[in-house]
Amino acid sequence: MINELAALVGEANVMQGEDMARWSSDWTGAYRFSPLAVVRPGSTAEVAAVVKWANETDTTIVPVSGNTGLAGGTRADGAVMLSLDRMNQIRDLRPEARVAIVEAGVILSNLHDAADAVDMIFPLTFGAKGSAMIGGCLSTNAGGSNVLRYGNTRDLVLGIEAVMPTGEVVEIMSELHKDNSGYNLKHLLIGAEGTLGIITAAVLKLHPKPGAYATAMVATPSLDEALVLLNRLQEATGGAVEAFEYMPRRHIEVHQQINPSAREPFETPQDINILVEVGATAPRDCTVGKDGQTPIAAYLEETLMAMFEEGMLLDAVVAQSEAQRQEMWERREASAEIAMSRKPFIANDIAVPLDKVAPFLKTMAQRLPELDPAAEEIVVAHLGDGNVHYTVWQSSEDAALRDSIMEAVEDVALSFGGSFSAEHGIGTSKLPSMQRRKNPAAIAAMKAIKAALDPKGILNPGKLLP
Amino acid sequence: MINELAALVGEANVMQGEDMARWSSDWTGAYRFSPLAVVRPGSTAEVAAVVKWANETDTTIVPVSGNTGLAGGTRADGAVMLSLDRMNQIRDLRPEARVAIVEAGVILSNLHDAADAVDMIFPLTFGAKGSAMIGGCLSTNAGGSNVLRYGNTRDLVLGIEAVMPTGEVVEIMSELHKDNSGYNLKHLLIGAEGTLGIITAAVLKLHPKPGAYATAMVATPSLDEALVLLNRLQEATGGAVEAFEYMPRRHIEVHQQINPSAREPFETPQDINILVEVGATAPRDCTVGKDGQTPIAAYLEETLMAMFEEGMLLDAVVAQSEAQRQEMWERREASAEIAMSRKPFIANDIAVPLDKVAPFLKTMAQRLPELDPAAEEIVVAHLGDGNVHYTVWQSSEDAALRDSIMEAVEDVALSFGGSFSAEHGIGTSKLPSMQRRKNPAAIAAMKAIKAALDPKGILNPGKLLP
Repeated sequence: MINELAALVGEANVMQGEDMARWSSDWTGAYRFSPLAVVRPGSTAEVAAVVKWANETDTTIVPVSGNTGLAGGTRADGAVMLSLDRMNQIRDLRPEARVAIVEAGVILSNLHDAADAVDMIFPLTFGAKGSAMIGGCLSTNAGGSNVLRYGNTRDLVLGIEAVMPTGEVVEIMSELHKDNSGYNLKHLLIGAEGTLGIITAAVLKLHPKPGAYATAMVATPSLDEALVLLNRLQEATGGAVEAFEYMPRRHIEVHQQINPSAREPFETPQDINILVEVGATAPRDCTVGKDGQTPIAAYLEETLMAMFEEGMLLDAVVAQSEAQRQEMWERREASAEIAMSRKPFIANDIAVPLDKVAPFLKTMAQRLPELDPAAEEIVVAHLGDGNVHYTVWQSSEDAALRDSIMEAVEDVALSFGGSFSAEHGIGTSKLPSMQRRKNPAAIAAMKAIKAALDPKGILNPGKLLP
Repeated sequence: MINELAALVGEANVMQGEDMARWSSDWTGAYRFSPLAVVRPGSTAEVAAVVKWANETDTTIVPVSGNTGLAGGTRADGAVMLSLDRMNQIRDLRPEARVAIVEAGVILSNLHDAADAVDMIFPLTFGAKGSAMIGGCLSTNAGGSNVLRYGNTRDLVLGIEAVMPTGEVVEIMSELHKDNSGYNLKHLLIGAEGTLGIITAAVLKLHPKPGAYATAMVATPSLDEALVLLNRLQEATGGAVEAFEYMPRRHIEVHQQINPSAREPFETPQDINILVEVGATAPRDCTVGKDGQTPIAAYLEETLMAMFEEGMLLDAVVAQSEAQRQEMWERREASAEIAMSRKPFIANDIAVPLDKVAPFLKTMAQRLPELDPAAEEIVVAHLGDGNVHYTVWQSSEDAALRDSIMEAVEDVALSFGGSFSAEHGIGTSKLPSMQRRKNPAAIAAMKAIKAALDPKGILNPGKLLP
């Protein structure tokens, strides 16, 4: 097998034994596994050759790019892992057309830098951006902190190139905004977690870089006032809120424990800490005035001041420099490290309507101690889109208890019109949830599609579908 | 058969003979056909019952809603037509959550009115809005004039309910902005032209109604200056251009012939007529100032004035009232009547990058007379998204000539990085184009999906897939 793979991608690009360490667990360490080998093709043609070989030899393939997922989507016992990390070229980047054409192994923050260099942004962003790669972002339809304004990953993709389970290459690298020509395979492959095809490249949408940002940390008496703030800012700015992130007091506390040199957001610790960021694109909102402020910053300060006077704000700090803005973001983006700083943890990733985040948390605060009195919740939320990362520090490695906690979280989320899965995907960790929560006719249709496109079941088996 | 169907949906809702006239051709009259019967279920359960019956009896079903398509997607010889027109309820409309929950038979303009009544908009709009229904909009992923700002139909849909070819109901009526739970069946069914399932209801996104619009007719020396205008307006307003529509002189002329009482856009007829509309949502852009103008109207006028002084504008008229604005829109929205006012016509619907619209038209002006010297082009374009409706008035009903003209249009569009199909879909009219232009691996995957979900081929056979 090793010789056959080496013939396809070169000996140096087939890893075994110790050389596979980097790929033999997810980054949280929750899942450990032993792939047969790791193969690192350097081109779409090489990916296709490996998949064809896998078909002929009935070998299962687990695609992997940045390996920063949280749902066990790259578990690869008894499979060959196909790493896309060598396909790391930005093939083209044309600001005038607002597109970047990138390979699956491009690291998200490298694309951020390349876009920034031409005064554009690729808006998708989240804590793992320094390791996460485009292939994984697309395969999980990653969300993150700017969904409120720019949508999920799929909303930022114009075209893709993918190797199908047969080894054939679907080339639909359209740069067009209208292109209705048959079933939308792009949207089918995005979010399919590598079970229907391996995305090798994509045409991504760039957006104009906001000419000015205004960023603040805000403390409110409850989440109700936070939503008032969000709505007032959206109305005042015509929908310019880029991010609206909720960190409870415990998030701040654990962040300080992990990073003792970090500054606390407020002099007095607060229960509700909101990171709000507004971005301005129209020149009239970006130009620094006589008062040394941009109009967008003035809108933010005026709104905060008014709410303070109405008693709806406990404290607020507006970033006065890019360094202060980055400090605010680093605190938020440490959430994965914070959640995984204690084990065992249960990474619940749910979504509810925005005004149901508070009732969800209130109900869980009652339910969790009933199930596991010694458990602790560690929460962070994209409040602007209703996505709550309700991580639970379980008291012990009890699998049955783990599942009943997950089930309770789902019960509560669904009771408020929510979803059991928001932005991390299903992988292996949410297969039981998928089985018990997803519409049966939808699951039947998904299984039929999987069987039709991958009859031998060679691509990322045991993931996504219960 | 009639008795069986009557037992499922009631005798009054099974049409035969003369009563089927309304459903026995497309609205252009280009396609005429004889369905076995037209059945009009009144609920999702009745749709499911009809599809189950069709499965058991091996009867083919052609779903239809507003029947305003241009690609022959409802041709129904030897099939039972399933009309969704009785499913015309807006089940719920909640401006605070920015959603409307509607059935497939809701007429687009009725949804516009319902949204308007609560100061919201459902942005999808096109000429046939007074007859087109939501089911057809979703099944074709309709585009229209506001795609520039709000996206295509699929970008406006949060959740759907659909009856699958088995008769099972896929219920994924999510209202959430993050909901990654398996393959995206929503996006697969949207744009599938009723071949994979019958969409019966949807959760649609509403947007805040712009507090002010500024609308103008503009004449430029060439399309190059028109794109300068588009870019300047987007930069000045931070992306507030709602529509940017191109009408050549011939469009205006034929419009005047059809509607002799209509006013011409300019005193002197112009070759290039652009309808531009900007919408403002932030209060600071909507408030009427001392000069009687909203700031958004002032931005538009200033931009037009500057370009006029630079010699980049030949003429411009800004709408001074809602009536004038409507007059501008009626002229644009008459495009289908204009194109179909002479027969035989070939409705080519292509997309190219924005800066390739002019080269596309220039090349076609040479190619068309070579193929059919007596043919005439009648063009209208969504210039803001590169979508050109390049209709050809063919000199005779010559099917071979018709196909070679279509092929030439595709050749030229593709040579400029375009697509052979933009917003009208494939239906039956573009099956040859689909066969010769679409990536073969993509077609193979589509056929596998169709066979898996609809093994008996009962849903809208002979459409979309070559």
